[in-house]
Amino acid sequence: MKDTKDSPEYLAKKRAFSKMLTLYGRKPVLEALQDPSVTPFRLHLATSNKPVTLLDDILLLAESKGAEVRYHTRDALSRISKNSKQDQGVAIDLQCPGFQQADDFLAAPPKAHFELLALDGITNPQNVGMIIRSATAGAIDGIILPEKGCAPIDPLVIKASAGTVFKANILRCSSLVKTLKQFRQHGTHVYGLSSHADTTLANLTSHSANIYVLGNETKGVSKEVSELCNKHIAIPMNNNVESLNVAVTAALIAFRTVIR
Amino acid sequence: MKDTKDSPEYLAKKRAFSKMLTLYGRKPVLEALQDPSVTPFRLHLATSNKPVTLLDDILLLAESKGAEVRYHTRDALSRISKNSKQDQGVAIDLQCPGFQQADDFLAAPPKAHFELLALDGITNPQNVGMIIRSATAGAIDGIILPEKGCAPIDPLVIKASAGTVFKANILRCSSLVKTLKQFRQHGTHVYGLSSHADTTLANLTSHSANIYVLGNETKGVSKEVSELCNKHIAIPMNNNVESLNVAVTAALIAFRTVIR
Repeated sequence: MKDTKDSPEYLAKKRAFSKMLTLYGRKPVLEALQDPSVTPFRLHLATSNKPVTLLDDILLLAESKGAEVRYHTRDALSRISKNSKQDQGVAIDLQCPGFQQADDFLAAPPKAHFELLALDGITNPQNVGMIIRSATAGAIDGIILPEKGCAPIDPLVIKASAGTVFKANILRCSSLVKTLKQFRQHGTHVYGLSSHADTTLANLTSHSANIYVLGNETKGVSKEVSELCNKHIAIPMNNNVESLNVAVTAALIAFRTVIR
Repeated sequence: MKDTKDSPEYLAKKRAFSKMLTLYGRKPVLEALQDPSVTPFRLHLATSNKPVTLLDDILLLAESKGAEVRYHTRDALSRISKNSKQDQGVAIDLQCPGFQQADDFLAAPPKAHFELLALDGITNPQNVGMIIRSATAGAIDGIILPEKGCAPIDPLVIKASAGTVFKANILRCSSLVKTLKQFRQHGTHVYGLSSHADTTLANLTSHSANIYVLGNETKGVSKEVSELCNKHIAIPMNNNVESLNVAVTAALIAFRTVIR
């Protein structure tokens, strides 16, 4: 029987796939496996790999943690890693319980007044990683990360996140505009961060679920997303400083109720 | 007459020198000169430089902003830039009005209950730059930056600071331990940031001038400095995240009164 886009089988597969993070590269894969909080699902190895100790270590650790092991041609492995230049013949699917589709989150949110960040065109992996680290440590229920326009979760992001990405609540979506529309239809307020806004983060009084949109490092929040925002908010700055680093802005939002 | 360490002439020179930032490299020097808030004092060029447009641009801009121009042998220029590998035959002394010796700040603080950050072994230029940017934008009166142990203010720091270093209040000192002792003798409270501390940033009630010490990215605040702290404070974290990025911690301190 073939899965159709509406069949329970298709949706279950999609859901399981959403919770999976595929990582590549020998050192990144080994380091992920060494993290006690990480559960591997499937290890992928290229049959072209020459035997080296590092690969033995990866294989032993993956098997001891219950991962299935599969061997592929070099080409097939490239299609799994989606990065043939940096995969070094190794990829791994990790189970990330905090990963899900944004619409699944919306269908069953963990609380009425949830607080989310949404990333709109954040291209620097260092920033994406730092945002994930601060949001996971702070009072944020999830990070909406669109498939396109942002730095993908790769070894650079994982490093900058100090490994917190594996336990982060990442809400995946294909189109940020479409997802924000859905959330707004359900009463969620959407705030765009902008250094030019009149309302400040301190003045924000809200009794709803909220999404804070963080925009591109240079251009800020995109026009299409800006038009979907209920309001734009700023963080007041001294000494004519023009803007804050976007990961710092994310941290101030994530911790503003924690540090007061 | 020779200057002695106590003579008014020596102290005046030392004071003027404290306010000077020497920067090197063609692109960094040009970018600094293009910043309208930057006042150059003296441009240094190696006589070995081959004529190129970029150098003409630097020379014209420096002269139009009233800088003195001096030519040096390649070796002499290296001694000025202190980085012969990256200076590209160009260095510049910039006047930074917010730079001063930490003991000069202590002798005449701008307010009774000032708030300072102190950097103890922060070696990543990206972190030092981001800390300067957040502190300058936030409610921090100065950053104590010891001569040794931290990343020096170089092109990488300037870039990560988004150019805010030129207007930052940087309090220089030769020994952080000695400087913190002096501040404590004058009634300033010193807090070391530590993820293991019982007191949280939110619980901190203080009616004094304060210094918040940020430690090395891996090892935290050093033992000698820890012993000088009145108290250690933590920022509470969710999801068993072990630590925050040090620049994020700095931003939370700098903005905690701004965003509440």
